[in-house]
Amino acid sequence: MTKRDEIIEATGRLLELQGYRATGMNEIVRESGAPKGSLYHYFPEGKDELAAAVIAHAAGTITANIEGVLAAHDDAAAAVVSFVRQLAGHVSASGYRQGGPITAVALEAASTNERLRQACRDAYRAWRRPFADKLRPAYGDRADRLAMLIIAAIEGGIVLSRSEQSEQPLLDVADEIERLLESGQ
Amino acid sequence: MTKRDEIIEATGRLLELQGYRATGMNEIVRESGAPKGSLYHYFPEGKDELAAAVIAHAAGTITANIEGVLAAHDDAAAAVVSFVRQLAGHVSASGYRQGGPITAVALEAASTNERLRQACRDAYRAWRRPFADKLRPAYGDRADRLAMLIIAAIEGGIVLSRSEQSEQPLLDVADEIERLLESGQ
Repeated sequence: MTKRDEIIEATGRLLELQGYRATGMNEIVRESGAPKGSLYHYFPEGKDELAAAVIAHAAGTITANIEGVLAAHDDAAAAVVSFVRQLAGHVSASGYRQGGPITAVALEAASTNERLRQACRDAYRAWRRPFADKLRPAYGDRADRLAMLIIAAIEGGIVLSRSEQSEQPLLDVADEIERLLESGQ
Repeated sequence: MTKRDEIIEATGRLLELQGYRATGMNEIVRESGAPKGSLYHYFPEGKDELAAAVIAHAAGTITANIEGVLAAHDDAAAAVVSFVRQLAGHVSASGYRQGGPITAVALEAASTNERLRQACRDAYRAWRRPFADKLRPAYGDRADRLAMLIIAAIEGGIVLSRSEQSEQPLLDVADEIERLLESGQ
């Protein structure tokens, strides 16, 4: 992993846990182990540019992860449900500390930071696309709307699972998405 | 409105926008117009106690709001969908600044503050209950799981609508919940 990637990963952990405003450059220095000069070398515009890079990184890695899981199943409904159930396991395995890497930033940025708002919006759009593509052959024009519901229910399900410290909310989401997808096209 | 309620409302606005950690007592003093001594008079344990009161307040007012909207429709599916569409209008009317008053705190608190985690968990449970009660006559044991999906999709839909600065994500959520509820019991 390059030094730049290490900085991005460390910052990502802080942003996921506490959002943008509560995360200071000094804390990023401590968490990443990178000297402050190195942070500004890679991200001359500071925390704003770094947070945008974190969001773009999350957009890319999670999109690749979604594509991988969806490609492992021929059936679109089975693929989507499998992704949500695996996610429940990941959130649980993190001790309910992880899941929804950009949600906290997205909420703050929505009305206070246009650059980060657009970065979060683009990440959510990137995550929706593989779901919509997988669903389109069977569900036609409805695929985009279904993908929106799926991303919304996943994002909210993560918040509920972390609050409950239980996989159940995400497993309930998976069950009902399964019924929705199997109920007709 | 009592002075205590004014403090709770001002703190609620800050927590909704930026979460717990980024919100300092001095900022609460500025936003509420209440002197610092008054804050500690009503909330002797400080920010922690105040944030818990904000979450309990949001739990109560939003539960009452959910109950009111659901009671206005005989049909359970129509009632739920009406609530989500009205919510889309509220989020839009706030300039996409509001919606999801406890989400930012819930994410932070899940792994760092047990008192606030439980307060958020209890708020989500309180919001689920009227949906489950409304759905139970028609959907039986499945009502609790449906209510979980509905709350998850609403929470996530708010994040997506604020990110997109558009009602569309919440309206898509409403349409697909409508199909799910009408597809069978």
